[in-house]
Amino acid sequence: MINKQAITKEEIHPVLKNRWSPRAFSGEAIENAKLVRLFEAAQWSPSASNEQPWSFILGSKGDETYQKIYDTLVEFNQLWAKTAPVLILCCGRTTSVKNAGKTNPTFMYDLGQAVAHLSFQASDDGLFVHQMAGFNAVSAAELFSLTADFVAVTVVAVGYIGDPEVLHPNLKKMEYNPRERRDLSETVFSGSFGETNTLFVNSPK
Amino acid sequence: MINKQAITKEEIHPVLKNRWSPRAFSGEAIENAKLVRLFEAAQWSPSASNEQPWSFILGSKGDETYQKIYDTLVEFNQLWAKTAPVLILCCGRTTSVKNAGKTNPTFMYDLGQAVAHLSFQASDDGLFVHQMAGFNAVSAAELFSLTADFVAVTVVAVGYIGDPEVLHPNLKKMEYNPRERRDLSETVFSGSFGETNTLFVNSPK
Repeated sequence: MINKQAITKEEIHPVLKNRWSPRAFSGEAIENAKLVRLFEAAQWSPSASNEQPWSFILGSKGDETYQKIYDTLVEFNQLWAKTAPVLILCCGRTTSVKNAGKTNPTFMYDLGQAVAHLSFQASDDGLFVHQMAGFNAVSAAELFSLTADFVAVTVVAVGYIGDPEVLHPNLKKMEYNPRERRDLSETVFSGSFGETNTLFVNSPK
Repeated sequence: MINKQAITKEEIHPVLKNRWSPRAFSGEAIENAKLVRLFEAAQWSPSASNEQPWSFILGSKGDETYQKIYDTLVEFNQLWAKTAPVLILCCGRTTSVKNAGKTNPTFMYDLGQAVAHLSFQASDDGLFVHQMAGFNAVSAAELFSLTADFVAVTVVAVGYIGDPEVLHPNLKKMEYNPRERRDLSETVFSGSFGETNTLFVNSPK
């Protein structure tokens, strides 16, 4: 298996350290209990005023929902996402449930958190997740008859990891690339924006 | 300690099951190694095109940064957030780094994911996190001289859990309330939006 462990100064949780977003999935289906857990993890994510502004459309390989989600993907993502046993359309509710007629300014943020919770549970269950913004959200909204309050935000591929050798040559190369992040000295500030917090002056890249 | 375990059909990871957002923190400071880990966890979160559209401003109780973040909170949050040893202003980059001049449509979603990663690491380290959208983002941008590409999105309180008895009576009551989520049958669909996926027909509330 490809090792893409995060390089950190302090040891982080193994689920976060070992997680990455592969393009090659195996043909193995996901067990129902694990599928249920993915969404239970997402559902117990926090959200502003507990609005829970997320909904998911779940497609399993071979069913019509999967095919419809797949059809909305940009060509580049179609190249590889076809190997994933599960595709999930992640939708956000733009309006508040508790304050009718008001928009929910953090719905995208809260949806992202819910999907992070889903992916944390997936990693712990030996699954891998690859999130995509490269799909046609308008077409997805039409295909699934989203109500006016909801927008489609991402498509998420989930499955067991597969053999990179089956991928298109360009994608195969990407599969072996190391994960990279900018230095934390460029991310964590104190005093004013851009002023590195002293804890992060000598952070590893 | 208050038990607010998530009620699920399938067992989810203990970090997700036991996580909740308290208002009473203890006076105990957070160790530096744990603080570093929080941000390393956030930094290794995924993001669209690996844009990493997040920056954090870290305030520790007693320093000027903490006070400035605190001053931006709405009065309700000031009531309790003063017990937290750490306050973090979470900022999102609205524009793409890789495609100059273009906006990044998923910056809020990706920022939410990064903060979720921070909160998993916190939970695993025995810390609790309470995220807030109730603060003055315009004032925060001014106080910390955010560059034009960035907006302040949330303030996050982090610390060890404290005794609810120190809280204002109204808040104390909330501290003991159970965590609640809607039924997954109202969240996970297949076929079309609103059509419950068969896996979730009899989900627990």
